[in-house]
Amino acid sequence: MLKLYDLAGAEPDRRFSPYCWRIKMALAHKGLAVETIPWRFTEKDVVAPSGTSGRVPVLVDGDRWIAESWDIAQHLEAAYSDRPSLFGGPAGSALTRFYQSWTDGVLQLALLRLVVLDIWRHAAPRDQDYFRQSREERLHMTLEAAVADREARLPSFQQLLAPVRLTLRAQPFLGGERPLYADYVVFGAFQWARCISDFKLLAADDPVHAWRGRMLDLYGGLASSAKGYPV
Amino acid sequence: MLKLYDLAGAEPDRRFSPYCWRIKMALAHKGLAVETIPWRFTEKDVVAPSGTSGRVPVLVDGDRWIAESWDIAQHLEAAYSDRPSLFGGPAGSALTRFYQSWTDGVLQLALLRLVVLDIWRHAAPRDQDYFRQSREERLHMTLEAAVADREARLPSFQQLLAPVRLTLRAQPFLGGERPLYADYVVFGAFQWARCISDFKLLAADDPVHAWRGRMLDLYGGLASSAKGYPV
Repeated sequence: MLKLYDLAGAEPDRRFSPYCWRIKMALAHKGLAVETIPWRFTEKDVVAPSGTSGRVPVLVDGDRWIAESWDIAQHLEAAYSDRPSLFGGPAGSALTRFYQSWTDGVLQLALLRLVVLDIWRHAAPRDQDYFRQSREERLHMTLEAAVADREARLPSFQQLLAPVRLTLRAQPFLGGERPLYADYVVFGAFQWARCISDFKLLAADDPVHAWRGRMLDLYGGLASSAKGYPV
Repeated sequence: MLKLYDLAGAEPDRRFSPYCWRIKMALAHKGLAVETIPWRFTEKDVVAPSGTSGRVPVLVDGDRWIAESWDIAQHLEAAYSDRPSLFGGPAGSALTRFYQSWTDGVLQLALLRLVVLDIWRHAAPRDQDYFRQSREERLHMTLEAAVADREARLPSFQQLLAPVRLTLRAQPFLGGERPLYADYVVFGAFQWARCISDFKLLAADDPVHAWRGRMLDLYGGLASSAKGYPV
């Protein structure tokens, strides 16, 4: 069976990595069963066979170890081409990169400034010092300072979702009538937040809220049944 | 032959609408010849047969008048399906919407704050009052105030292009190895600016600069040969 190293918190069943969620949703899209193995930030050695610098997701498929969510998704698409496509063809695959660039560089960066202290609270005790130090370096401030004014920054976060919102007024998923990997990339960010934070990100009448609900329901409620907070 | 109502400035050959550029590039992608008809902001009646509220592009294909760039692109894809695809399939079409939402709501809004006074300067005299009034209402300030600090805002404009930049580090076009309609949507915004403004938007070593150069060169230099300023 496929194995996936999956970031976990203090509780082994709190799985909050947005990059891992991209792949867990992609595996479900393909109808592939997977054994997920809880992994902590500081367990760099465990995933060394993948050649990564020590990050997850790492997929083990037979004797192949594959790192980086994008490369894993491409592997799943190629190796399981008889299953439903994640991209809808080569053009769709190329067009999906921008979703990843936007999610990594815009959406998740803004989310980090809202929930980074909640991540620290849920991290495994042995990971907490590493997490605090590396994120405070990246943010140039303490975790407490990063989230101190988050209520005031919520409107600008919601404004930043305008392109997603506008798209979802025209179609139920970013991929059209059905979800594609682009949906899993953007959704991974929201699922990351939901797994570790009770901070309300979206108004109930926001089309992004309704889409997130559809994503939570996919594949027998794969994402909604994961340990986290109500949205 | 196909006819396209195409926004023009004081000079009939200064064609600067970003939405019209999307379609002119799409027509060239399909290898379709078109007669473009110069149109001014205040000529609402001329395009009334399209059912639009008086905006361009409007395409006339036989006895059909089609408004809205998205609908025109969809028409071209369906009516000329034997020509190279603009989307690479239904998934690609759905995935392209987000590019349009991002370009309309983020990129062009930021560009407007950099070049809106240049647009006014190049607008047809009979359009200038209409243009100033409608844009000052939208921006809640005078055109002069809107662009006053544009040098200072250039770094944040360039920062906003991060998702495009990151994508173009991985592939030559947003559509992958070859341009697709997604490229024309984003490029239309840069061509809009180039047609009416000498303000330098991109550093020479920016991957977005190199991509814009490739776009300007497409189809025998269709975009680079249009009246405008050097980039």
